[in-house]
Amino acid sequence: MSEHTYKKVEIVGSSKTGVDDAIKNAIDKASKSLKNLDWFEVIDTRGHIVDGAVAHFQVTLKVGFRLD
Amino acid sequence: MSEHTYKKVEIVGSSKTGVDDAIKNAIDKASKSLKNLDWFEVIDTRGHIVDGAVAHFQVTLKVGFRLD
Amino acid sequence: MSEHTYKKVEIVGSSKTGVDDAIKNAIDKASKSLKNLDWFEVIDTRGHIVDGAVAHFQVTLKVGFRLD
Amino acid sequence: MSEHTYKKVEIVGSSKTGVDDAIKNAIDKASKSLKNLDWFEVIDTRGHIVDGAVAHFQVTLKVGFRLD
Amino acid sequence: MSEHTYKKVEIVGSSKTGVDDAIKNAIDKASKSLKNLDWFEVIDTRGHIVDGAVAHFQVTLKVGFRLD
Amino acid sequence: MSEHTYKKVEIVGSSKTGVDDAIKNAIDKASKSLKNLDWFEVIDTRGHIVDGAVAHFQVTLKVGFRLD
Amino acid sequence: MSEHTYKKVEIVGSSKTGVDDAIKNAIDKASKSLKNLDWFEVIDTRGHIVDGAVAHFQVTLKVGFRLD
Amino acid sequence: MSEHTYKKVEIVGSSKTGVDDAIKNAIDKASKSLKNLDWFEVIDTRGHIVDGAVAHFQVTLKVGFRLD
Amino acid sequence: MSEHTYKKVEIVGSSKTGVDDAIKNAIDKASKSLKNLDWFEVIDTRGHIVDGAVAHFQVTLKVGFRLD
Amino acid sequence: MSEHTYKKVEIVGSSKTGVDDAIKNAIDKASKSLKNLDWFEVIDTRGHIVDGAVAHFQVTLKVGFRLD
Amino acid sequence: MSEHTYKKVEIVGSSKTGVDDAIKNAIDKASKSLKNLDWFEVIDTRGHIVDGAVAHFQVTLKVGFRLD
Amino acid sequence: MSEHTYKKVEIVGSSKTGVDDAIKNAIDKASKSLKNLDWFEVIDTRGHIVDGAVAHFQVTLKVGFRLD
Repeated sequence: MSEHTYKKVEIVGSSKTGVDDAIKNAIDKASKSLKNLDWFEVIDTRGHIVDGAVAHFQVTLKVGFRLD
Repeated sequence: MSEHTYKKVEIVGSSKTGVDDAIKNAIDKASKSLKNLDWFEVIDTRGHIVDGAVAHFQVTLKVGFRLD
Repeated sequence: MSEHTYKKVEIVGSSKTGVDDAIKNAIDKASKSLKNLDWFEVIDTRGHIVDGAVAHFQVTLKVGFRLD
Repeated sequence: MSEHTYKKVEIVGSSKTGVDDAIKNAIDKASKSLKNLDWFEVIDTRGHIVDGAVAHFQVTLKVGFRLD
Repeated sequence: MSEHTYKKVEIVGSSKTGVDDAIKNAIDKASKSLKNLDWFEVIDTRGHIVDGAVAHFQVTLKVGFRLD
Repeated sequence: MSEHTYKKVEIVGSSKTGVDDAIKNAIDKASKSLKNLDWFEVIDTRGHIVDGAVAHFQVTLKVGFRLD
Repeated sequence: MSEHTYKKVEIVGSSKTGVDDAIKNAIDKASKSLKNLDWFEVIDTRGHIVDGAVAHFQVTLKVGFRLD
Repeated sequence: MSEHTYKKVEIVGSSKTGVDDAIKNAIDKASKSLKNLDWFEVIDTRGHIVDGAVAHFQVTLKVGFRLD
Repeated sequence: MSEHTYKKVEIVGSSKTGVDDAIKNAIDKASKSLKNLDWFEVIDTRGHIVDGAVAHFQVTLKVGFRLD
Repeated sequence: MSEHTYKKVEIVGSSKTGVDDAIKNAIDKASKSLKNLDWFEVIDTRGHIVDGAVAHFQVTLKVGFRLD
Repeated sequence: MSEHTYKKVEIVGSSKTGVDDAIKNAIDKASKSLKNLDWFEVIDTRGHIVDGAVAHFQVTLKVGFRLD
Repeated sequence: MSEHTYKKVEIVGSSKTGVDDAIKNAIDKASKSLKNLDWFEVIDTRGHIVDGAVAHFQVTLKVGFRLD
């Protein structure tokens, strides 16, 4: 991060596979509407259970991007 | 929450009545500009005091909504 | 609390009405299977939103009870 | 809050009715001995259980007041 | 989560493979004695090191389940 | 801790003597109903005051035990 | 804060000079796209080091503004 | 705690002996100027080291007392 | 800190200039009514924004002083 | 952990692949200069984003090792 | 603490006796390799249980020492 | 931060002038014995009071540096 101003937004990504994939899905989605994404921070990891097994993982991220 | 991506925004609602009403006011206001609101989380409860009595309650919420 | 041993369990109560009622519902439910309930601590307050309004409040409590 | 110095004190209010009322009781009591009360922050919510039901709610507040 | 009462228990799952697998192992074990498991929250991730390499990952979860 | 699944429960032990003794009392009580106790973590230390002196110490612990 | 609804956004300001200046830069930038800015809260202070000296300070703020 | 209002103050007690004694010293001192002391909560434990050994323990407490 | 008892109070200082000055203002004010001030701890930094610029910084401190 | 003294150091491992691999890389690097590594605790998970995708994951660990 | 630079390291001390003794053991061990130890802060208290009783207490400390 | 391994150490810098200067002093001192310093994070700000005025500011930092 150089001498810029950044904004952070909080998003929740999901995946049936695992934590890494939920992070990637969230970043992929965020990159569709936000430019200059620079870093992410994991805030929280949780998920849903169906029939006694993990149905999907959910990871809450803060995503930082540079303001032009 | 199914396998979607969500965004969270942080809002502060107010009420002269109490905590429940401040939450409802915040959600009501948020629903005017955001679609697909799904859940809220209370982050902080505070308020202002005037003449030795509560003038209004203020509740900070995170509100999650599904990205289309 | 006198010189006893206590156990705490974590429960989540719900209500369409508000925070106080969600707490009471959780205590009422817990008292059906646990004896000697002594105190509660609010850990977290959140809820679900349907059609832009609060559908129900959810309050996570720790409930302490005396071990015989 | 304008350019003044403030002090915060921590008080615990009680109520048989609920959270809002416990907050109001605490502010009411504090206003009897402190002038220029300006705001409060909820720190903790808990309560006592008697015979399987909430006997009273207890809310810990920080109360800020302006030093003359 | 609809208008029900839930209980949360805290469990620690292990895996030689990684974080996702430790979560799945914990859920799998919990589902053997608890019905109506609904969600999990990751509280803590740690592990043991043997001969300078990760011997196994340990993930502490809170697991929520609906009380009948 | 080897590659097992563990559960944690939260208990509060008391003692007129001090913190160490309150911990021991809590573990002693927990060991009466739970097998395979493996470790404890101190969560909180508090106590009651009577006539301007400590009447008893209360220590909240999480206690981990191996599920068979 | 009177009986309005507010929104908070999280921004990161930078400065070669110090913490105060990084806060001012962040507010200045935020005021270009947001109206009715009302208060800020410092969340985090960090910075980059180049050649053994502080290259720039970075301060993460939450900035609150009134929704019309 | 029954349906009263309480105030909490924060004090730091010291002892050359250990944690329990530092708590007792703090309560003893507080009881000289405050009436109706009811409970304490340990906030922080630290101490000074002189010549490679503990010179004294310092325990920060919140002490709650009933307002008449 | 030697083997004494200390008390901490929480105060909020303000300044149009910056964080350091807000701290100094708070200490200066506190020293008018309290003797034997020994140390301070910064708890929170925030401020008000007027016309898109910082109007004043507000720093919440805990201030420790020795009880005679 | 038996009756020994341990030291903890804080390291940050990176990986293009995911969280598990970043942990393993950090442990592998730490084991090159430290003997008797015994356990790790994940403190923080974050990463960099390049061209709208995760460039690498970064996991901050505390690593505990036995002092001889 | 005067106008010096200090470093903090994190160590874990053990004792079969109790918390005070675990702190002293950790300081004693640290003083063998570090000079100018000045203060400690307790971060975490836990321990192992064998046969339903505390086998040893483990206290994690940060220890501060002056850099020459 | 690219795909390297980093270590963080915790240091406390002091200054009679203010927070920025205490940070710079700490980094300056750390750079005398550590190479490849990359970033810092402010953990805690406090200070000593003498004769009712700030005698010096003390800032605790985590400093990250790249392992070769």
